[in-house]
Amino acid sequence: MTVNSFKKILVPIDGSSYSEKALKRACDFVEAFGSEIILIYVVEKSIPINLLDRKEYLEILQKFGTKILDKSKRTLSKRGIPAKTFLKEGNIVNEIEKVAKKEKCNLIIVGNKGLGSVARFLLGSISNKISQLSLCSVLIVK
Amino acid sequence: MTVNSFKKILVPIDGSSYSEKALKRACDFVEAFGSEIILIYVVEKSIPINLLDRKEYLEILQKFGTKILDKSKRTLSKRGIPAKTFLKEGNIVNEIEKVAKKEKCNLIIVGNKGLGSVARFLLGSISNKISQLSLCSVLIVK
Repeated sequence: MTVNSFKKILVPIDGSSYSEKALKRACDFVEAFGSEIILIYVVEKSIPINLLDRKEYLEILQKFGTKILDKSKRTLSKRGIPAKTFLKEGNIVNEIEKVAKKEKCNLIIVGNKGLGSVARFLLGSISNKISQLSLCSVLIVK
Repeated sequence: MTVNSFKKILVPIDGSSYSEKALKRACDFVEAFGSEIILIYVVEKSIPINLLDRKEYLEILQKFGTKILDKSKRTLSKRGIPAKTFLKEGNIVNEIEKVAKKEKCNLIIVGNKGLGSVARFLLGSISNKISQLSLCSVLIVK
């Protein structure tokens, strides 16, 4: 391997067991290829839910996202792996793609399901959309 | 890493630069995780092309598939990597999935485009279908 094809890895997380599994696989890459990990949580803004006041709803998701990012960062830290984190608001797929591009990631490791778990109708489609739209390679973990 | 999550890797090839890139990434996994590689070429039977006699058409594709598999096997062999090969006939996605299941593969590494290059209308959709239907993890190489 002349060039490290897995130098920078973006792992979108959402607190689901699927994203936890994706994070575990990312650790395998760190050990094997010395990859850097970047974590991202996206607060989905476009969900048409009126159960709560919109502002309150977004605040709750932001708190949840911060918690999930901290937890994942601690998990990595215990294994001696540093990680950059991003908390974004917007469309999940677009925000992931934007960070992947900006940070020049070589790979996105994503769980097969999860991501957008609040909007259950989206289940399973996020990972497909990422793999279709992303400019870098995508590992879909099952 | 307690269990090798990338023990057996299936690489569908079609002679395109995309599948060559996928094969290169597979070699990275062999070096890093000691993975085994299985190569598959699928002769797409369901293509509605009447340019040639159907039998002759399938024979040409079979010969092409055998050549491509041999070439890829030689490429791997030069790097000291052994590989099992499969030449199948049928629906590309189904045949890949069947071999992945039978051989208990942990990962499928597939090029973003290519596969089913004869049927150009399918371009890009094969890798998506594989990632949607596969029971094991899928790396889409770009």
